[in-house]
Amino acid sequence: MPDKMQVRLTLEYDGADFCGWQLQPGQDSIQGRLEAALERIFNCAVRVRGAGRTDAGVHATGQVAAIRLPRPFDPGDLKRALNALLPPTIVVLDAASADDNFNPRRDASSRLYEYRILNRAQPSAFDYRHVWLVRGKLDLDAMNDAASRIIGEHDFSAFRSLGSEERTTRRIVLSSRWNQNDVRIFYRIEANSFMRHMVRTLVGAMVEIGRGRASADSMTTMLEKCDRALVPASAPSSGLFLIAVRYPG
Amino acid sequence: MPDKMQVRLTLEYDGADFCGWQLQPGQDSIQGRLEAALERIFNCAVRVRGAGRTDAGVHATGQVAAIRLPRPFDPGDLKRALNALLPPTIVVLDAASADDNFNPRRDASSRLYEYRILNRAQPSAFDYRHVWLVRGKLDLDAMNDAASRIIGEHDFSAFRSLGSEERTTRRIVLSSRWNQNDVRIFYRIEANSFMRHMVRTLVGAMVEIGRGRASADSMTTMLEKCDRALVPASAPSSGLFLIAVRYPG
Repeated sequence: MPDKMQVRLTLEYDGADFCGWQLQPGQDSIQGRLEAALERIFNCAVRVRGAGRTDAGVHATGQVAAIRLPRPFDPGDLKRALNALLPPTIVVLDAASADDNFNPRRDASSRLYEYRILNRAQPSAFDYRHVWLVRGKLDLDAMNDAASRIIGEHDFSAFRSLGSEERTTRRIVLSSRWNQNDVRIFYRIEANSFMRHMVRTLVGAMVEIGRGRASADSMTTMLEKCDRALVPASAPSSGLFLIAVRYPG
Repeated sequence: MPDKMQVRLTLEYDGADFCGWQLQPGQDSIQGRLEAALERIFNCAVRVRGAGRTDAGVHATGQVAAIRLPRPFDPGDLKRALNALLPPTIVVLDAASADDNFNPRRDASSRLYEYRILNRAQPSAFDYRHVWLVRGKLDLDAMNDAASRIIGEHDFSAFRSLGSEERTTRRIVLSSRWNQNDVRIFYRIEANSFMRHMVRTLVGAMVEIGRGRASADSMTTMLEKCDRALVPASAPSSGLFLIAVRYPG
């Protein structure tokens, strides 16, 4: 067995009570909980590297992370040990051996996010921290018209977090689609990668279109002008889920 | 406006943190939270009468309750005032004027319950208090064969809580059906009324059948023998939801 055997974890978590994926001093993060559990198992510090940094309040059903094992440990046993030590809001769905050079962030070919809206007058007694409550009628056809405008490679400067610095603001959107099931409305978007707040900013803009306050054409204008000031407020973190991280092959 | 105007409430609640519907001294109940909120609004004690008493940990998306207003109050305003005062895990979905003689329990023609199973190896990071986690393969055809045996009028003595006292143990089951959506399995049962623990006991028996530990024929035997000792353990309260209470007309 190689000295630095890697394990790839697939993770589900309820982000409502966490400051986000990334370790932050004095705060409760997913990465911090995982590293604390790993330290209890291995009796030494173990670094967890995630495929992406989900923000405070953002959830995941398919986050991917990698760890280098300090000593040999069966991945199935590691999954069971972690699930026994982690809080119920963080679940290891899968643990598998990975190549020594596997890098969950760099190697990912795409990420799939889902945004969940509850479209009724009253909040949900169950899901109030896992949806965005939007009251009033939404025009799903107009929202899907807008969603289709961003498919392909574009400069998403207008849809990033203010002040974020990125090497490039061009992204390739592979799919972008709204679906409805009674009072529940879901948006799924897959892209090669995302900038910070990009999904929430896109959703905020499309909900304004769904409310009839802007036209689907405004989506194309916002894209082309690359001006964050043209774009409405972002949707809240509560509705956002990282569904899957995809790798070549 | 009549002296004792009644309002009918439709309620959704997450039962995980409550001792059940019914008021119990020193414990946190749905009824208790509603009566406390009503006392803040009306500045006097207001009794809330529910259509049924859900147990500790049991949820509702369509519980019905009635209150006699101590003074005239618009039902829509009452809904908004209650939702502002109640915890986020109790939501008033609807409030409407009701006949003075409306009795939510006596007048109900049927109740619809749903039982939710998560059928995978790992618990859910989101729904761990809103499902029963059942690992391993379940034979849905056998479970539906068993479910069909209880449709119609039967003596459900074998499927009630030990020690419960009922005027009659005969119930009329209107529908009884399992459905599956990927790793989520749902059982819906509608009957004129239910005895305590009846749905959970039926579900416990049918999951044993789904696991292949008993045959669908055993369901008929359990019904006919009227012997609680023949019936497997009840399913946990976490998966049970009161979906609707139906009234004639």
